[in-house]
Amino acid sequence: MGDTAEPETLSRSRMQHLDWNRVPIEQVNPLFDRQLIVGEHIMVARLVLRKGCVVPLHSHFNEQVSNVVSGALRFTIEGEEIILRAGEYLCIPPNLPHTATAIEDTIAIDTFSPPRADWVNKTDQYLRT
Amino acid sequence: MGDTAEPETLSRSRMQHLDWNRVPIEQVNPLFDRQLIVGEHIMVARLVLRKGCVVPLHSHFNEQVSNVVSGALRFTIEGEEIILRAGEYLCIPPNLPHTATAIEDTIAIDTFSPPRADWVNKTDQYLRT
Repeated sequence: MGDTAEPETLSRSRMQHLDWNRVPIEQVNPLFDRQLIVGEHIMVARLVLRKGCVVPLHSHFNEQVSNVVSGALRFTIEGEEIILRAGEYLCIPPNLPHTATAIEDTIAIDTFSPPRADWVNKTDQYLRT
Repeated sequence: MGDTAEPETLSRSRMQHLDWNRVPIEQVNPLFDRQLIVGEHIMVARLVLRKGCVVPLHSHFNEQVSNVVSGALRFTIEGEEIILRAGEYLCIPPNLPHTATAIEDTIAIDTFSPPRADWVNKTDQYLRT
């Protein structure tokens, strides 16, 4: 294991060999824990969302690919409800407003490109209220 | 489930709701099967590499994040051997030459940004010999 995550800066371009046991856990709110692996173009986030956790309506220019590992998330996008269950992937294009609610205790892997500066810099107030 | 993967073109920017059971499997060589989910900035690939599969030395401008789901891969990068085991992630910066060998039957999730045009267009001859 060559490294630990240091998600304080963006635009890194170096080899990283990690597992989630070596990445700091940030409790973003009482229902939402997050870990980040941050590359130059790719950010991989492991999310633990407890049942009832609501991610309010928001959008970002970063493309998002959400993958539920266990549990289930209910997304609402353009008036459509999408239930994302274990093993499923949802690609959310840039700038598309979306909400998500954990309808079960959920572990998800979200991938973004480019990396989310607001998550790295902790300026993501929409998650902290 | 809203869609199936159609990895023939790049630069898509649309919502996709998928699981791997709905994505075509491509047998790239007798030891290497591949499935692709292709977004605008992100490509997620599910790889099945049988023990002994060798990915020859190559490089690409696309950043790569490899995650082993089961099994183990031995990477060689700049003379260093890295064994990537289940649950681990390896971030490979753009343009860094690397090889990989499956030292066990392996399932891996590789994420690239931008998407690999050679994988989408099947011009990846280095994998087909």
